[in-house]
Amino acid sequence: MKMYNFNSGPAILPAEVLQQAAEAVIDFNHIGLSILEIGHRTEWFVNVLEEARSLVKELMQLDDSYEVLYLQGGATQQFMQVPMNLLDEKATAAYCDNGIWGAKAIKEAKLFGNVHIACSSKDREHTYIPRELSVPQDSAYLHYTTNNTVEGTQWNFIPEANVPLVADMSSDIFSREMPFSKYSLIYAGAQKNAGAAGATIVVVKKDILGKVSRAIPSILNYSNHIEAKSLMNTPSVFAVYVSLLTLRWIKKEGGLPEMERRAQERADLFYDTLDSLDAFMGKVDKRDRSLMNATFTTQNPEHEKLFLDICKNNGMVGVKGYRTVGGLRVSMYNSLPLSSVQVLCDLMKDFNEKHG
Amino acid sequence: MKMYNFNSGPAILPAEVLQQAAEAVIDFNHIGLSILEIGHRTEWFVNVLEEARSLVKELMQLDDSYEVLYLQGGATQQFMQVPMNLLDEKATAAYCDNGIWGAKAIKEAKLFGNVHIACSSKDREHTYIPRELSVPQDSAYLHYTTNNTVEGTQWNFIPEANVPLVADMSSDIFSREMPFSKYSLIYAGAQKNAGAAGATIVVVKKDILGKVSRAIPSILNYSNHIEAKSLMNTPSVFAVYVSLLTLRWIKKEGGLPEMERRAQERADLFYDTLDSLDAFMGKVDKRDRSLMNATFTTQNPEHEKLFLDICKNNGMVGVKGYRTVGGLRVSMYNSLPLSSVQVLCDLMKDFNEKHG
Repeated sequence: MKMYNFNSGPAILPAEVLQQAAEAVIDFNHIGLSILEIGHRTEWFVNVLEEARSLVKELMQLDDSYEVLYLQGGATQQFMQVPMNLLDEKATAAYCDNGIWGAKAIKEAKLFGNVHIACSSKDREHTYIPRELSVPQDSAYLHYTTNNTVEGTQWNFIPEANVPLVADMSSDIFSREMPFSKYSLIYAGAQKNAGAAGATIVVVKKDILGKVSRAIPSILNYSNHIEAKSLMNTPSVFAVYVSLLTLRWIKKEGGLPEMERRAQERADLFYDTLDSLDAFMGKVDKRDRSLMNATFTTQNPEHEKLFLDICKNNGMVGVKGYRTVGGLRVSMYNSLPLSSVQVLCDLMKDFNEKHG
Repeated sequence: MKMYNFNSGPAILPAEVLQQAAEAVIDFNHIGLSILEIGHRTEWFVNVLEEARSLVKELMQLDDSYEVLYLQGGATQQFMQVPMNLLDEKATAAYCDNGIWGAKAIKEAKLFGNVHIACSSKDREHTYIPRELSVPQDSAYLHYTTNNTVEGTQWNFIPEANVPLVADMSSDIFSREMPFSKYSLIYAGAQKNAGAAGATIVVVKKDILGKVSRAIPSILNYSNHIEAKSLMNTPSVFAVYVSLLTLRWIKKEGGLPEMERRAQERADLFYDTLDSLDAFMGKVDKRDRSLMNATFTTQNPEHEKLFLDICKNNGMVGVKGYRTVGGLRVSMYNSLPLSSVQVLCDLMKDFNEKHG
């Protein structure tokens, strides 16, 4: 059965990336060794790492005031690593409270300094992106999550603040053009649009570092990783390689402008279908809908399980909402073909005719 | 050209593990999806993780007072995570200072509490394992590195101490039988005998936790990972799977007794050859020689490069010593065939005849 992968992450990857990754597990670049059994300080792997770091910069059009790191631990580790490196004990950082992941970041930041909530969408269960922000002028930084994977909202504008911007871009990195040079720090788990689980991309503007007074453990100090060119210790070698293959694919297909065009095309098809059917309804404000993760429900709550069964029987995975939130969700990352969305929309139309 | 992999880590893996891993990158268990694009909370991956955690326990013959975690960040992250979880600010931990990695662990521990050096082999460049230890009775724990990858020494006895034992077993885990239940905490990067880079195994006896007063960031708190059954956030999915495949292979081949027999056989062949040749000499005390990493030099320092070239021309990788130490080193992990050691020994004998 053909599978349609709407997983929220780890998520769909381009077929050619999977093919190349599988080949490298057997024989990397025809050297007679697997990518899994070569030293991380060999020229072989250093070339992989350097090309990946440089492609991140190129796709984001960043200059040499930025460094790109491949770390481990996922965005969850960044929730604590960011304030540990940037927020002094008596200083304040501003955080946007717009979803489950942002809330986790806020919780960790409070261990290191003061947190000011710049905006919150809690009053309506995070179904929208607030337009009004309050950011104290002495904030060490403003942190926000560009795309809320669980709730299905996405910032389609850059928050105004005269303080350094820090963003968790885990679920929409490399999916659209953005003025990345407006940010002082960007982080993302790779397992959505940037590769496979196990690699975490951190893009940091060097001038934001070295300003806190606490002693930072070596492995958690961004400056150490910069100095070591992201080879302070053994990195997640295979995950970095899959990220490189994914970045090469993005570039070859046309870069971020093309990724954005495809994302818009998929989202238009899906949301137009959704809005045209009585049997379903979206969960968030239309103007804040995510191009990556669409959350919705069946009009009749009892129909939800029925629709999920139909999806499953048609080879669709990942249509279920986040475990603590419920409802329905489809994730439409860079490598999801428009045709997969079309098949889903046809199923929805069919469902609407029978149960609408 | 046939390759002979003496890498120190990431290191050689069994050919069948590589084959199974490559197949899973294309199609995991015939489900029509890659291991790289399935959710980490699906039954598919949860089964992988649970089997791997349970195999670690089985191979180590540990009971349910222990928990096995698959974390990220390598042993280097454990250098700080261990004291953060186990060492209160005013308390003392005892550390053995027997090599580069142990020294790094000591450096990080000092950020969290007092460090007492239980023994040191610094006086002779870490070429031996001390027999005398001083361990304060109120130490929170005694930490040591069971095998010194860089220096080529290995503890072939368990240090006596009436305090909890903590061990970095990165380079000899699963290579020999040990009374693992004597330890309160064991950690190891997977990229030598336990899989590929990107996964870190932590085995923890639960009664050692919850005793420090500091606030521990969520992702660094072992208790949180235990509660979440090692699924607190997205793990390094593929690296965990490769670890599972490697553990299955170890079990199938005869478990730790058989791994130890093979290690001894390889080491005997290598060291007997080494000792019989004038052109080479070992670097460490004979009784403390590592079965995993053999360090040696050429009698004539000018011959080192020549021998390295010969190795390279014969398809051998990983024969060079650690970058900051120099000399020669061959790593002989679980899946290195005895025949590879034989080929190396033949080259050494040949070299001895020409240059001895």
